[in-house]
Amino acid sequence: MPELRRDPVLGRWIIIAQERGKRPSDFIIAESPTVGGFCPLCPGNEKTTPKEVQAYGRESEIPDSPGWQVRVVPNKYPALVIEGELSREAEGLYDKMNGIGAHEVIVESPHHDHAFSEQSPEEMAVVLGAFRDRIRDLEQDDRFRFVLVFKNFGKAAGASLEHSHSQLVALPVLPRKIESELTGALAYYKYKERCIYCDIIQQELKQDVRVVCKNESYISITPFAPRTPFEMWILPVKHSSAYHEQSEEEIFDLAEILSESLRRLNACIPNVPYNFVLHTQPLRSQPMNHYHWHFEIVPKLTSIAGFEWGSGFYINPLPPEEAATYLRESLKHKS
Amino acid sequence: MPELRRDPVLGRWIIIAQERGKRPSDFIIAESPTVGGFCPLCPGNEKTTPKEVQAYGRESEIPDSPGWQVRVVPNKYPALVIEGELSREAEGLYDKMNGIGAHEVIVESPHHDHAFSEQSPEEMAVVLGAFRDRIRDLEQDDRFRFVLVFKNFGKAAGASLEHSHSQLVALPVLPRKIESELTGALAYYKYKERCIYCDIIQQELKQDVRVVCKNESYISITPFAPRTPFEMWILPVKHSSAYHEQSEEEIFDLAEILSESLRRLNACIPNVPYNFVLHTQPLRSQPMNHYHWHFEIVPKLTSIAGFEWGSGFYINPLPPEEAATYLRESLKHKS
Repeated sequence: MPELRRDPVLGRWIIIAQERGKRPSDFIIAESPTVGGFCPLCPGNEKTTPKEVQAYGRESEIPDSPGWQVRVVPNKYPALVIEGELSREAEGLYDKMNGIGAHEVIVESPHHDHAFSEQSPEEMAVVLGAFRDRIRDLEQDDRFRFVLVFKNFGKAAGASLEHSHSQLVALPVLPRKIESELTGALAYYKYKERCIYCDIIQQELKQDVRVVCKNESYISITPFAPRTPFEMWILPVKHSSAYHEQSEEEIFDLAEILSESLRRLNACIPNVPYNFVLHTQPLRSQPMNHYHWHFEIVPKLTSIAGFEWGSGFYINPLPPEEAATYLRESLKHKS
Repeated sequence: MPELRRDPVLGRWIIIAQERGKRPSDFIIAESPTVGGFCPLCPGNEKTTPKEVQAYGRESEIPDSPGWQVRVVPNKYPALVIEGELSREAEGLYDKMNGIGAHEVIVESPHHDHAFSEQSPEEMAVVLGAFRDRIRDLEQDDRFRFVLVFKNFGKAAGASLEHSHSQLVALPVLPRKIESELTGALAYYKYKERCIYCDIIQQELKQDVRVVCKNESYISITPFAPRTPFEMWILPVKHSSAYHEQSEEEIFDLAEILSESLRRLNACIPNVPYNFVLHTQPLRSQPMNHYHWHFEIVPKLTSIAGFEWGSGFYINPLPPEEAATYLRESLKHKS
């Protein structure tokens, strides 16, 4: 079983998910992406994945059969396992926990070559709805404290399969980065009695130098202190701390702006590898006045070297104001 | 001038170090390392670097001439600039600061192809002594709060030049990761009235399952919650919070254990890319009872994808106890 271990100084949790029988040289990262060959996520190959958790758009009622538009399956090589009781124990001054959690794959399209950034808002809305449904479902399991939804696009960003997919991990502990965000946002709220993200949105709308695009419900910006060139955040304009409280209409507006943001990014740098991560409130929390859910989209353009590792400092060669200008102008000749 | 910007929620500082005239596609990471061609760090080319800050082992007194063993020069493409007054200002709710700091390159050897891990302890001691001397010198400049010393080995770890070198950056703010370490260590100290790192060393010596090697003054371990396979920490056995307080003898012992640790790593995975980072106390601090300086060596083996970005969570496929076994046995047939 995998194991969760906590760094005693920083409080950072890591997962030891052992792949048995590996030799040291097996840990070297492959240089080039795996392309071609058999794809377990393509229609017709449903029996080669673990049994599906949920499927969208299929008319037949037979699970693990073709005809779906979006399909959610357990990860075949999970970082955490779903079965077992949580148990936390000490090893001297160290803390560890057995690796209980869910690790699922959201197959975003039946078409092997259909990149997420090329999806229409209608198609993308089904994927974003699946994120919401899975969080709602996993919230029922009181062993879990947080559902981390993320996407790795491109080998440099960590994707190991070509077929368009995102992932989620339900965790028995609160990730340190989310905890830091909650703490930082709460400190501001205590001082100002306002949500810091709401204030950021107001300032961004007023300054209008880092806004990439917006619609009735959402705004897409390059953040003031971005880690990489073209980093983007998408936030709901109206205060909301929980992603999974969105209405159908809001999900559609979100699909529209996410689709537009990714198309703009792709128009700036074709096929750029990127990660996106959903930042939302912990499971079974009451709505929070101080926290505001959002997506962070981080292109994988600069390598994270010693400086960033050691310091939590990032060096970014592109000011976000210039990135926003590029992104705003990137679809001009096309739309 | 570069600019330091602070994320208003997390308190994370990033550096915007603009490289003018770049187009979006210029931000794509090169796939393969630059090899061959002109090397500005080789002896005979001293005039092509900015004027040297310090040199070791040269008999002649002519600066920027050959004959040195280790040479420290300002980075030609610095992330921060040394000249100017610090000024911090607001932009609405955001904070920024002009990018004042030092960014230096420590050329570790006159020989272009002599990898750091192949250096003898005698050679490495000169490099480690240069780290100490530069910290002592930069501590005099009261604009700076921290000196971050690090090394990127291999393109995957961020090295842009082949010739063996490490770097240092003197910063006007305390890096968030060091601040978190200080906070975590202080919390433990307040509770136990002991240094957490001293307790870790005691437990590691007793358990003896994560010790890679040790000598009179230092211990090299795989930490309990490592981010990557073969992560190693080197700590002084006797409590000390400031790297630059080491004696000549201690520097030599450190060179011995660092050299051995890197040779063991290299024997496990030849030419593995890695970063190492020196964690030490802030400049002009009194000696701290709760903090303990150390090196963190992080091989670049697994890619940092969405999961890690979003959560501060790392998935590591190799338990540190097994990594320690590999490292302990790796030189058996050679020494």
